[in-house]
Amino acid sequence: MYRSHSCGELRAAHINTEVTLSGWVQKSRDKGFMVWVDLRDRYGITQLIFDEERTSKEMIEKAKSLGREFVIQVTGTVIERESKNNRISTGNIEVLVASLKILNEALTPPFTIEDKTDGGEDIRMKYRYLDIRRNPVKDNLIFRHKVSMEVRKYLSDQEFIEVETPYLIKSTPEGARDFVVPSRMNEGQFYALPQSPQTFKQLLMVGGMDKYFQIVKCFRDEDLRADRQPEFTQIDCEMAFVEQEDILTIFEGLTRHLLKEINGVDVTTFPRILYDDAMRLYGNDKPDIRFEMKFGELNSVAQHKEFGVFNNAELVVGIAVPGGNKYTRKEIDKLIDWVKRPQVGALGMVYCRVNEDGSFKSSVDKFYTQEDLAQWAVTTNAKPGDLICILSGKTNKVRAQLSALRMELAERLGLRDPKVFAPLWVIDFPLLELDEETGHYHAMHHPFTSPKPGQMELLDTNPGDVKANAYDLVLNGNEIGGGSIRIHDKHIQATMLRHLGFTEEEAKAQFGFLMDAFEYGAPPHGGLAFGLDRLVAILGGQETIRDFIAFPKNNSGRDVMIDAPAFLDEHQLKELSLKSDIQA
Amino acid sequence: MYRSHSCGELRAAHINTEVTLSGWVQKSRDKGFMVWVDLRDRYGITQLIFDEERTSKEMIEKAKSLGREFVIQVTGTVIERESKNNRISTGNIEVLVASLKILNEALTPPFTIEDKTDGGEDIRMKYRYLDIRRNPVKDNLIFRHKVSMEVRKYLSDQEFIEVETPYLIKSTPEGARDFVVPSRMNEGQFYALPQSPQTFKQLLMVGGMDKYFQIVKCFRDEDLRADRQPEFTQIDCEMAFVEQEDILTIFEGLTRHLLKEINGVDVTTFPRILYDDAMRLYGNDKPDIRFEMKFGELNSVAQHKEFGVFNNAELVVGIAVPGGNKYTRKEIDKLIDWVKRPQVGALGMVYCRVNEDGSFKSSVDKFYTQEDLAQWAVTTNAKPGDLICILSGKTNKVRAQLSALRMELAERLGLRDPKVFAPLWVIDFPLLELDEETGHYHAMHHPFTSPKPGQMELLDTNPGDVKANAYDLVLNGNEIGGGSIRIHDKHIQATMLRHLGFTEEEAKAQFGFLMDAFEYGAPPHGGLAFGLDRLVAILGGQETIRDFIAFPKNNSGRDVMIDAPAFLDEHQLKELSLKSDIQA
Repeated sequence: MYRSHSCGELRAAHINTEVTLSGWVQKSRDKGFMVWVDLRDRYGITQLIFDEERTSKEMIEKAKSLGREFVIQVTGTVIERESKNNRISTGNIEVLVASLKILNEALTPPFTIEDKTDGGEDIRMKYRYLDIRRNPVKDNLIFRHKVSMEVRKYLSDQEFIEVETPYLIKSTPEGARDFVVPSRMNEGQFYALPQSPQTFKQLLMVGGMDKYFQIVKCFRDEDLRADRQPEFTQIDCEMAFVEQEDILTIFEGLTRHLLKEINGVDVTTFPRILYDDAMRLYGNDKPDIRFEMKFGELNSVAQHKEFGVFNNAELVVGIAVPGGNKYTRKEIDKLIDWVKRPQVGALGMVYCRVNEDGSFKSSVDKFYTQEDLAQWAVTTNAKPGDLICILSGKTNKVRAQLSALRMELAERLGLRDPKVFAPLWVIDFPLLELDEETGHYHAMHHPFTSPKPGQMELLDTNPGDVKANAYDLVLNGNEIGGGSIRIHDKHIQATMLRHLGFTEEEAKAQFGFLMDAFEYGAPPHGGLAFGLDRLVAILGGQETIRDFIAFPKNNSGRDVMIDAPAFLDEHQLKELSLKSDIQA
Repeated sequence: MYRSHSCGELRAAHINTEVTLSGWVQKSRDKGFMVWVDLRDRYGITQLIFDEERTSKEMIEKAKSLGREFVIQVTGTVIERESKNNRISTGNIEVLVASLKILNEALTPPFTIEDKTDGGEDIRMKYRYLDIRRNPVKDNLIFRHKVSMEVRKYLSDQEFIEVETPYLIKSTPEGARDFVVPSRMNEGQFYALPQSPQTFKQLLMVGGMDKYFQIVKCFRDEDLRADRQPEFTQIDCEMAFVEQEDILTIFEGLTRHLLKEINGVDVTTFPRILYDDAMRLYGNDKPDIRFEMKFGELNSVAQHKEFGVFNNAELVVGIAVPGGNKYTRKEIDKLIDWVKRPQVGALGMVYCRVNEDGSFKSSVDKFYTQEDLAQWAVTTNAKPGDLICILSGKTNKVRAQLSALRMELAERLGLRDPKVFAPLWVIDFPLLELDEETGHYHAMHHPFTSPKPGQMELLDTNPGDVKANAYDLVLNGNEIGGGSIRIHDKHIQATMLRHLGFTEEEAKAQFGFLMDAFEYGAPPHGGLAFGLDRLVAILGGQETIRDFIAFPKNNSGRDVMIDAPAFLDEHQLKELSLKSDIQA
């Protein structure tokens, strides 16, 4: 037996008990005739005391030899601490050590195993197993486990069945790139790893499973933007005999349950906003509504004068920064520099101070009167003391730019409090999205999303205007989930695929099994998938998903700890009937 | 809203309630002026009634048009059934339909959607989504979900943390073949899919996670024996600061919990048997102990006469078949034919009848006396009325043959009752296994398994005799889990790898990160993995894992429903810098 107790559980009530503990040496203090050692395990830290008077000289010498992160086992008696430490749960006691065994030695770790470490990202990733010893990482993993357990508990209580769908499936060129897996037993052929279990969950609905969920790994071989992973985890759900409203209700319930159980927060309302309104009011389909600063569209009150920049713009749009009038000229110039950075891409920014006396001072005073500016204030809902920031240009671009500015300013103003949770649904997404490069439309969500009733006709005339029965759940400015009501009619599905540019042959080759399934009594169905990595990060009050993944990959898709991917030996390639253009 | 109730929940208490139901047409009976339809969903079946008097003629015509597996929605009133059906939970009521809507039509399914179907394995796999509508398959999937939930609940209550380990890892040529995944972003390099999260869970122990578990997909590119799948699910566990006893205790607890919660069975004892004894007494490292028929080794009482077959054998070994003396000569001849089949491979079988009067009659009476045969009866624990079956030959082969016979006879005798559960631990497995082809030893469990204390020295002299801290949990003749105490000392790990034939370079290339990790304070640790597919099948009283997997692959590793694997298009191969020797 390596231990009678963990390092986190001894209390005053244990005083005079003989205990055995095992763990890692967090640190030690050597006073010559006395040595204290902080012994750490997953559950906490217990102070050990060695002293010449009460134990032996040999023991004290051995204790002095202990390095950081040595693994030791001690037996001793719980005694009351002279100077209590109320910052840790075991702070009332210490263990007077009677025997000490070194279970394993340790080299000095390449960074400190402390809450605030001296190690940079790269070294911590290479030695992730040491990084995991640190409380922030360890706590994040435990937090993730708790969230997953609560998700399963809630959905299972709602009669959802977790069904494992296959990982070795078929490649579909549509959408993001698949990771593929050569099959040795079926020479020259490949499996693909799933980007999501989409078709399988729809087949489960055809199979009468009614309510399905799965917490499941998904894979996308995409160039990795910051904070994306080639493998990621989804909470994947599907329901039969449902309308959009049924799905929103269930997943509001799940989100409310998580916020309550995990964060102790009661969220009563889940406002709903149309996609078009989200774009108009926040420039963004995942608005952070913990704060206001809604967009005010200024075309009608800013394009009637001689200011060409505005007059030539498709959209002139502004936000009122609360208390922004206190910014100095220099600070505002910095803000202008910020929006002109290539990552944001604005050409400039017009601003207008709203003075406490109700007067205005703008950077375009030579074009506009006080009455004009008063109109801007009304439209952007600016109050005395605010600063109105205005961008102009092509609608889509300028919305994205102003949205970036809005988020940045909220961050600076401390309006993005990670302890406040403001979920909302964005609904009625467009069915199709124009690929500006190819000029073709592709499915915004996926090709199985159903158009809103009565809009099929628009597909031929105004494809971009067709709205879908598709919805996203947004939490604090992040999309944490999205889904749709699916097509369950084979004719509509065939029409959709034709509009997406699939020939009948391609459609059959790729989705034939799903189209076949729709012949045999497919029920109306729909679903939703949450991104677990991001959901956990946001519930944990952070935004970096990597901090909530045990062994994440870097931006090149590499695991630097195990050094993967790697070259195969010739023999392995040969068995797979493959040749690589690249040599090891 | 598609339904107010499911098809499984209406009872007498609902009589006179107006309800809306949706589901599939299971079957209908047409009496001309009246039509009954059985409406089915996941939760049950509700009888619908249409009649001319109480509804309309149009409605009845529409009802008559319904084909099997049509998806419909009805609204109507719950009424009392005239002839109750107490075989279904809704058997006291029926729904008098007021409105009927066909939600989707259905082609006639290629096999009947009944508990006993007329569809063969192949067609059911191709239309698995229809197969899943059948109760036996649907119930198995729901059963699997319940088992998984209980596993998670138990382990989580025991402070285990579920940690997701990566799926895109590094190939290790050791052991079974890896599935590999070409990386586009790291040209010419490959990931591998995990055969198990073995090294990651050990790294989590080094990382102080203390108690880890995960229900996780694993992958092996092996030629598929019957009832093996290229992707399979493990309940993977690891614990730090433990000895073998700690692990056995926890997982006895888990197994006991599952048998209690899932099967309502109280299992009190988990006997333990040494691997050597299991081989000696059952010819098998996963003995079914629901019945006796232990092996009796007969060398000392069968090699003293002139019977050359026995005298030349390494092992002469028999079992007593309870009541087997009632077999006719013809039946015994058939048994002999059975052991001579190539799948078993015995050259012949000697038998000895134990008559009710205590006399013996054997097939080798010309060599052995009644006293000799009496000795055989003692050794095999044969009673009057039994039949002793004896095989002889090389020890390993003859044990396997007699074990096969023992299982076959038990099956025929009805001794393998799927409602009886008899778990046991097989412990002290050999550390190494001789590969008869190459003459090399390889790790029986895996290269991280620790030898029993004090046995390292034997590695040089008698490698085959070294026993490991390794254990299997066996349930009803199936290995449902296995594990070991791991090596946590880098020197011992290096010695092990050297003995397994790894050069220092190879060891570093493949396991360098683990060896490095062991430098930084690795705790003693060990673990276990359960095969979830098999565990679920056995708890469900069956032995075919495929029946408990939603979308299984066939023996060629193909998913015949989606037709995967498949050829890639040239463009995809090119992006991966790959050429295939095989053309589509």
